[in-house]
Amino acid sequence: MEEFKLIAKLESLIKSRSKDVLVSIGDDTAVVKGSGAPLLCTVDSLVENVHFDLRYFSAADLGHKALAVNLSDIAAMGGKPRWALVSLGLRKGVRTEFLMEMYRGLLALALKHRVEVVGGNVSRANELFVDVTVIGEAPKRPVLRRGAKAGDLLAVTGFLGGAAGGLHGLQKWGKRCATLFPELAGLQTRPEPRLAESDALQGSMNACIDISDGLASELHHIAKASRVKCVVDSEWIPLHPKLKELARKLDLRAMDLALYGGEDYHLLAAIPPKKLRAAQKKIRALGGNLVVVGEVASGRGVFVRRGGRLHQLRALGHRHQF
Amino acid sequence: MEEFKLIAKLESLIKSRSKDVLVSIGDDTAVVKGSGAPLLCTVDSLVENVHFDLRYFSAADLGHKALAVNLSDIAAMGGKPRWALVSLGLRKGVRTEFLMEMYRGLLALALKHRVEVVGGNVSRANELFVDVTVIGEAPKRPVLRRGAKAGDLLAVTGFLGGAAGGLHGLQKWGKRCATLFPELAGLQTRPEPRLAESDALQGSMNACIDISDGLASELHHIAKASRVKCVVDSEWIPLHPKLKELARKLDLRAMDLALYGGEDYHLLAAIPPKKLRAAQKKIRALGGNLVVVGEVASGRGVFVRRGGRLHQLRALGHRHQF
Repeated sequence: MEEFKLIAKLESLIKSRSKDVLVSIGDDTAVVKGSGAPLLCTVDSLVENVHFDLRYFSAADLGHKALAVNLSDIAAMGGKPRWALVSLGLRKGVRTEFLMEMYRGLLALALKHRVEVVGGNVSRANELFVDVTVIGEAPKRPVLRRGAKAGDLLAVTGFLGGAAGGLHGLQKWGKRCATLFPELAGLQTRPEPRLAESDALQGSMNACIDISDGLASELHHIAKASRVKCVVDSEWIPLHPKLKELARKLDLRAMDLALYGGEDYHLLAAIPPKKLRAAQKKIRALGGNLVVVGEVASGRGVFVRRGGRLHQLRALGHRHQF
Repeated sequence: MEEFKLIAKLESLIKSRSKDVLVSIGDDTAVVKGSGAPLLCTVDSLVENVHFDLRYFSAADLGHKALAVNLSDIAAMGGKPRWALVSLGLRKGVRTEFLMEMYRGLLALALKHRVEVVGGNVSRANELFVDVTVIGEAPKRPVLRRGAKAGDLLAVTGFLGGAAGGLHGLQKWGKRCATLFPELAGLQTRPEPRLAESDALQGSMNACIDISDGLASELHHIAKASRVKCVVDSEWIPLHPKLKELARKLDLRAMDLALYGGEDYHLLAAIPPKKLRAAQKKIRALGGNLVVVGEVASGRGVFVRRGGRLHQLRALGHRHQF
């Protein structure tokens, strides 16, 4: 069974009706309401030889990425991460020094974003896995997938395809890729959660999602949740500047990596046109770039415009098969 | 490296100094302070062929136990569980119907304790694992491991050794154990978190821990964290009534199962003598039994009294080796 179908099946079992659960399964994080301000909670795991390969992931890379993918989910809700729990499955042969290095990579990123690692678990396993839970503070109005409106512009916080390009390069050339294409390799092993961008875009976004599975897949999530049509223009999609060279060497298409590759962990946001200029200025002030890739329209489905014609864009992003 | 040594090493890396982290790594759960009342957070994983074996764990058992072990940690802090996240690692061959059953087992327990499953993750893996995070409300004064005082009595909320006996029986006889020793098998596959007991004991406990790794190991945690001596009397330890028969058949010692076996998920509490009678009455009202097994004294270490003489009790409880 395909990942999202399985999740939909599980969702139908769970569907919380409690008024303390503001957002349940089906967005980037859950939103729950205790005695204080609403909280965001999210969990994500990295499994050896599924999400990472120690031939080209250092221990510190692994720690960094295991936390980063969760912080990215918090960013996608417009929230502020606060606390993390780390649950490790350790196979034989994982040495203590490796674990300490992994923690150092994780803690360096935690420190940067003022996240406290407050607990966790260590278990024997037959493969290495790192499961991180992050709890954060929700903003006054969490930015959901379902808020996009016809007329909004679709924008991303930076170049796409880099992380997927890096993955292909690392798989082909191993660690040598870090010399050949250091930026792309780094985007794969050390993604940066876009928390500053998320914070800067507060109040500008009608909907937001982080690009973990690829632009096409995330557009489908927005379109479905918001009951709208999403149209992107292939000319507007910002390909990473090093991507074409790598794609040529590997006989891949750069645009496919950007659309379907995933793991860029940029934000994809739906922004009303009148708020765009100010939003772009804020992102530029952070040294980044908020790039319009398309627009939201009434209707359904996801389309890409190429040479003035619309083509359906399939949700071919990365997903697990079970 | 041995589990607790590894955790101590990681602790030394992490040691949060933030004033919003009231209790960090080293107790049953973390305690953190957001804008509302303090929160408890804990995570625990069950890994196939490490924590469970599908030859004698049903899917629903697995779901039940994956949540139960976390609820037990919340109970050990005197808290109230609220929200859960479920992160699954799925190997090939795990069928959708198995997962739905697993969720049904988990959700039945969640419903019983008014816990909402609000999110999670599904990932491909090479072995099956279930990682559950629970967030709860802390009581006004969380009950820590470090609060035991000389003069306190040590008490447990029920029979010990049953879950370990069940495990040995299941390993020996497979599912047939559920016919031969149904209660013991059930204690292994379907432990009950002692949330009602924890709630009833509010205000009576100076320290508390849940018995996941065995009485001996938990006594060491209390003794070390509280800087006290713990002495238990071998005559007072309540062995499960069916345990001797099973132990005889398997050539095991019932007392060893109670001391070192673990997974009973009863609470071990340090209670001032003047509060004992009232506490026992409350637990009896729940249909249970609060059994004194020993006392706290000034000094250090953990001892068992046998025939009037004290012997050191080693922390031989279950622990992973890495």
